[in-house]
Amino acid sequence: MAARESIGIGLMGLGVIGSGVAKVLMGKPDTLTREAGSNLVLRKLLEKDLSKHGSLGIERGIFTTEFEELVGHPEVDIVVELMGGEHPALEYIKEALTRGKHVVTANKEVMSKHWSELLTVARDHKVTLRYEASVGGGIPVIALFQEDLVANDISAIYAIVNGTTNYILTRMAKEGLDFSVVLKKAQELGYAEADPANDIEGVDAAYKLAILATIAFGTEVRPENVYHEGISRLQARDFRYARELGYAIKLLAIAKRVEDSVEARVHPVFIPEDSLLAKIDGVYNAIHVEGDLVGKVIFYGEGAGPRATSSAVVSDIIKIAQDINHEARSVLYRLPFASGRTVKPMVDIETRYYMRMSVADQAGVLAQISRILGDHDISISSVIQKETDPSTQIAEIVIMTHPAKEQAVQQALKETERVAVVKEISNFVRVEA
Amino acid sequence: MAARESIGIGLMGLGVIGSGVAKVLMGKPDTLTREAGSNLVLRKLLEKDLSKHGSLGIERGIFTTEFEELVGHPEVDIVVELMGGEHPALEYIKEALTRGKHVVTANKEVMSKHWSELLTVARDHKVTLRYEASVGGGIPVIALFQEDLVANDISAIYAIVNGTTNYILTRMAKEGLDFSVVLKKAQELGYAEADPANDIEGVDAAYKLAILATIAFGTEVRPENVYHEGISRLQARDFRYARELGYAIKLLAIAKRVEDSVEARVHPVFIPEDSLLAKIDGVYNAIHVEGDLVGKVIFYGEGAGPRATSSAVVSDIIKIAQDINHEARSVLYRLPFASGRTVKPMVDIETRYYMRMSVADQAGVLAQISRILGDHDISISSVIQKETDPSTQIAEIVIMTHPAKEQAVQQALKETERVAVVKEISNFVRVEA
Repeated sequence: MAARESIGIGLMGLGVIGSGVAKVLMGKPDTLTREAGSNLVLRKLLEKDLSKHGSLGIERGIFTTEFEELVGHPEVDIVVELMGGEHPALEYIKEALTRGKHVVTANKEVMSKHWSELLTVARDHKVTLRYEASVGGGIPVIALFQEDLVANDISAIYAIVNGTTNYILTRMAKEGLDFSVVLKKAQELGYAEADPANDIEGVDAAYKLAILATIAFGTEVRPENVYHEGISRLQARDFRYARELGYAIKLLAIAKRVEDSVEARVHPVFIPEDSLLAKIDGVYNAIHVEGDLVGKVIFYGEGAGPRATSSAVVSDIIKIAQDINHEARSVLYRLPFASGRTVKPMVDIETRYYMRMSVADQAGVLAQISRILGDHDISISSVIQKETDPSTQIAEIVIMTHPAKEQAVQQALKETERVAVVKEISNFVRVEA
Repeated sequence: MAARESIGIGLMGLGVIGSGVAKVLMGKPDTLTREAGSNLVLRKLLEKDLSKHGSLGIERGIFTTEFEELVGHPEVDIVVELMGGEHPALEYIKEALTRGKHVVTANKEVMSKHWSELLTVARDHKVTLRYEASVGGGIPVIALFQEDLVANDISAIYAIVNGTTNYILTRMAKEGLDFSVVLKKAQELGYAEADPANDIEGVDAAYKLAILATIAFGTEVRPENVYHEGISRLQARDFRYARELGYAIKLLAIAKRVEDSVEARVHPVFIPEDSLLAKIDGVYNAIHVEGDLVGKVIFYGEGAGPRATSSAVVSDIIKIAQDINHEARSVLYRLPFASGRTVKPMVDIETRYYMRMSVADQAGVLAQISRILGDHDISISSVIQKETDPSTQIAEIVIMTHPAKEQAVQQALKETERVAVVKEISNFVRVEA
């Protein structure tokens, strides 16, 4: 069968990522044609700001403000959605699939919230929906689960998938600075947005983890079922204690298969300082995966930015173009099989904990706290008590526990807080070995 | 189109890897059937030792000692070659492809020496030849280049692809031991073979690099064109100097695109101790890739062993089964495009060098050495001279150079060796920044 001379692209959204992809599509035609087997031709570009064509050198005639002009164009084979946000991206993707267009998207919010629905529409209309760029930027993590580790039963994912928070945590650890100081610096450098809530509260990472857990475990994990907790409570002293105890602090997206359920959670974690994930610095991303055959594999790379993201988007386009030329349909529409697994409520997880608290410097304080923990089946693995501040007579105690139930720990901390000699539960952080 | 009920496998070779793959094929049918879309059924097993069926619980009737019985079996769709070695694996693979069977192999020697020939036979007979397990064990590195980074122009690969040598180097670095001592320990533990030459001399890594460079750069790189040098010359003192200078020592497989040529070489390298590759310890593998869009990505995992290797072999089988069910043919038969690039001779490379030499403790020795280096356009970036051994009056000098031409360095070392006050050129190691 002969390859088609050209395959048409309709691109939606010409922001930072969209412009990056447009540049690649226009800038390296030899490589793309060789790999795709056909010329990849930008046929339509949906963008409100029509003045953008000038700076990118894109022919003015292909710009439109009307979705219908793009989706209805007979020579658009692949619709590439890079608008971001839930609406109208969701509706546009659905409409494009319904009308027989293949779709490539980098939209983690839409994919995490509507994964099953969109994949069903794609399957029903015999088209492909690819979304490699929705997690991990240029690192091919979706392909890892859907194509390369398919012989494995996956047991765990530990992932650094948000560059903004990893950048902030790296500087807090290295420079001994507090959260708010580093956030400001990150905003000045463009590594954090003016409204950073989605990143620093773990929402972005929860979207990405929902997608990874869904495809890794064959169970639809929805973002609202992913527990998420951000990094804003961390203080410089937590990093000092972590180092003293042999740990680094990272915001991890964690998904595990535990018997018939799946854990899916995003929160700061103490991890051993000699682990590879502890060494992932700055805006980089890394995904640690454990499978029954492959053991542990780690993928590392740039998790954001227009060039890294365009690597994933354009590779997705090329894969679809190859399938068109081979008259094949990829199997990526495979929906979650009936694994019967449910997402475990956060209160039911079991892990180790770091707790930091301020207490009155009196005899018997540690005994009182230990008793409360013991009453909840929480056993202590180590304690650090530093010299007391003479002016306030307040001491700081740090406790590391053995594995304990989240619910028990939450309850014990509430009770501990009510003890008169305990001035404050300053922080607690989960620990992964 | 309906999926086939079953797809037949013919497995050749029941050694460590073959047994591992057989166990997976028989041990987790639910996962494999779900992913492949059909039952994967072991139809024939080519193995000289017919007694092996017992321990694996494989039906005796499918064993054969005759290749023809396997390749001629009408229900064998995919031939899996896990015999290892060049012959007769090469002839069997070629014959299987010629007779319309898809082939999966883990054979780095055959793939590196006969890549172009075998891919041509596969293309001509419209079948697929997959070889993910030939490099990096369970880490999907072949897929990375052939499927996931296809939008990129690759500029460099730095890879730890031999677990035996990485294990030896890790112990030499951590325990201050000499090569021969650690080699013996590695052999006792089964991490090195009784005849370890292929691993420690870099031959195994050169095979793997030839495959990676060929698919990454679209230029057929043959193993005989890959310069290789092993780790046996390294001594405990080289690791001490490396640490003092801020480096680790690793056996790296390096391939770079430099203008119109490709560098491909395997040798010990000084790499900055804070780089991620410097932190890859023990038998693990890691592949660092640089692409124009993706930036740098690093893949890490187990590079050998029956379970990790079976992850790659069985995933390859599943991909072919999916293609059979979708009546599609993968594009993996793509042959090197006419990139016009040639492999650069080793003498033409340019890098930095570490040199260690024993010299008489006399005035003017360093001046003499510097003059010779200077005559060859080699400039010195730093020098370490330790206190002289009073009994022998021999001093040890370590020189780090700025980037210089390999040919010039080789020539300069020869001339230096002839200087009367120079007792010995003890070692030299290339440096990558």
